Order: sequence, then structure tokens, then C-alpha cells
Amino acid sequence: MLRIGVLASTRATVMEPILEAIRNKKLNAEIVCLISNRKDAYALERARRNGIEAIFIDPKGKDPVDYDMQVASELERRRVDLVLLIGYNRILSSKFVEKFRNRIMNIHPSLLPAFPGWDLNVHRAVLKSGVKITGCTLHFVDEKMDAGPIIIQKAVEVREDDDEETLKKRVQEAEGEALVEGIRLFEEGRIVVEHGKVRILR
Amino acid sequence: MLRIGVLASTRATVMEPILEAIRNKKLNAEIVCLISNRKDAYALERARRNGIEAIFIDPKGKDPVDYDMQVASELERRRVDLVLLIGYNRILSSKFVEKFRNRIMNIHPSLLPAFPGWDLNVHRAVLKSGVKITGCTLHFVDEKMDAGPIIIQKAVEVREDDDEETLKKRVQEAEGEALVEGIRLFEEGRIVVEHGKVRILR
Repeated sequence: MLRIGVLASTRATVMEPILEAIRNKKLNAEIVCLISNRKDAYALERARRNGIEAIFIDPKGKDPVDYDMQVASELERRRVDLVLLIGYNRILSSKFVEKFRNRIMNIHPSLLPAFPGWDLNVHRAVLKSGVKITGCTLHFVDEKMDAGPIIIQKAVEVREDDDEETLKKRVQEAEGEALVEGIRLFEEGRIVVEHGKVRILR
Repeated sequence: MLRIGVLASTRATVMEPILEAIRNKKLNAEIVCLISNRKDAYALERARRNGIEAIFIDPKGKDPVDYDMQVASELERRRVDLVLLIGYNRILSSKFVEKFRNRIMNIHPSLLPAFPGWDLNVHRAVLKSGVKITGCTLHFVDEKMDAGPIIIQKAVEVREDDDEETLKKRVQEAEGEALVEGIRLFEEGRIVVEHGKVRILR
């Protein structure tokens, strides 16, 4: 059974479809812990409500690499196979990335390389730009932000009557689908990274 | 009947679906001329073969604005309502843009803002990047390259066995669809530009 550790800074809403897929035996996986850098993140509460160990690690006064090593040690202690970033607002140090190379997935609420970055409100930027198609991107994390090998992308139509909330809701549905598919592919050992690109074994 | 003028620098392959839609009465339009800045552009030959007036205007030794005004004068003389850029590799001067404000459409072979620019091989860049979804963008042209109000976007899946040719072929199909739809909306007077964004009247 695949052991998943989640890192989250906000609500981790799209953990729900993963939990549902686990309940429905669509994934042979378990979320063994959720770690947050923010004490008040609703993600911690969501984890507890689902019987998942919720761990707050305080970044205050810590060197970023030391912080990451503390997170890594919690993940390793729980023998985590796959690290999922769900709205995690820290850049991972290369030492952390090396430890979990091609085992860290991030879900981003746009079709990268369009609308990268977590410091802006992606959906607001999408609506402001007037694009007609957005979506989400599931990718492995490497040293560059929003630039690791792309595993899955899903397109989502932007509607004229969309506001940030309605658009976010539809993109989150796509994020849930991408995560469940990506975890299943990982669990089946079908994701290969070659020359910085993902190939899916048939 | 809508009078269309095409500006093209290369092959203008996606003029074909427009011509087909005109033949099948799906568009109440006519392409009245094709103007190229390159004497050897196959687009000129394609125009002639389809009974469209083909005009080469030599940019050599001309100031860019003078050149654009010469192009504009040819378009105006033929009472062109809509200017289509199909693989046109010149940046239009603001004087030209002002003359045809919200009446110049460009088709770009990616989902803008991703992979902008015509000086790179877009499909090669798409394949190299490893994105799983690309597409095309039909937009009005303003003073900034690849940045005017977006009218239509179409998503196209990138397949693992795609090379530049196979991907280009599928994207060109989407471009044809976007162009035909966009011309029809324009012809029906249903495209409104508000605050730099396109709204389609129902």
C-alpha cells in the first residue's frame, strides 16, 4: 500500500477526492500524515477529521534547510513513499528535493507554464487576463518553482459568468481528478522521468 | 457579406478551412485579398489557386510605419472589414492597429499566455517543455505582441508519440475551427470588447 504524506499551508480542499478514492478502493493508498507550516491552516483540522495524523512544524526562527530536514525526518519516520504538495507555500530546498527526487508531486491551479507562482491569486489573474481556457497541472517538484516534469494536465473552460469562486470550484474538481490519476499511476509504477519529461508506461 | 483581408508570411495553411466554410455557406464572407511581406511565401500561391487576389508588398528599405500604411491602403481600397493575420511575422505599428481597432484577428498556435512569440518554433518548444495540453488562441491584435483580447481558445492534447509535424497538424485543425467560429461571431456582430476582454453576445 502506497504511503502518502501531504504538505499543506491552507485548506487542502483537494485532499477530499483523494480520500474518497481511497475509501472507494480506487486507490491502494493511505495518507499517513499531513504536515503544515501554519498552525491555523484548516488543512490540519481536515486531516484530524479524517483520522490522519496532523503535524504542525513551526518555521519561526528556523533556517529553511533545517526546517525542510525536520519535515523530511517526520516523513521518513512514517515511511512515506510519495509527498503531495497541496497549496504548500514554501519553496523546497534542493536537499529536500534530492531526498525525495521524483517522489514529490505538486498540484498547481493553472495550465503551466501559464500563470505560475503561488504568491498571486491564480484564478483572479486568469479572469483578469481574459483567457478562455485554464486548468490544472500535476507535476514533480524540482529545484525550480512550478517547473518540474509535468505528469498530468487538465483543461477547464473559463465561462463568461465565472467569478473567482465558481472558477476555482471547477478547477478544483479537475485537480482532484488529476491527483487521483497521478497517484494511481505512481502506485502502479508507470511514471518514468526521462530527460526531464514524464513518460507513462502503458 | 463580410470582406476579409489576410496578411501572411509563410504558408497560410489554415486559410483552407475558412475557404471551405465559405464554399459550404457556413460563413457569409469573402477573402478579397492576401497580402504578404515575402515574395516566396506559399500563401501567395495558395491565394491565387483559390482565385484570391495575391499581393506582395516589399518591405525592403521601407520604414515599418510607411510599410504598414501601404498595406492599410490596399486593404481600405478593397473595403476590408476584417484583417486576419495567419502566420504574419511582422509586428504591426500602432498606427495600423488604430486604423483597424478590434478588426484585426491573429491566430496563435498555443494557449496564450503560454508559448508566445512567432520567432520560435512553438510546437518544438511545447514538446520540449513536456506540457500535456497545448492548443491555439484567436485574439484581437493590439499594440503588444500576442496580448490582445482573446476571442477563442481551443485545447489540444499533446500525445507522447507526437513529433512537431503530428502536433502541428492537430493544432492547425483547432486553429481552423477557432478561425471559422471567430469569423462567424464577428460577422454576426456578437463580439464585444470591454475593459480589454472579449464578451460574446448570446
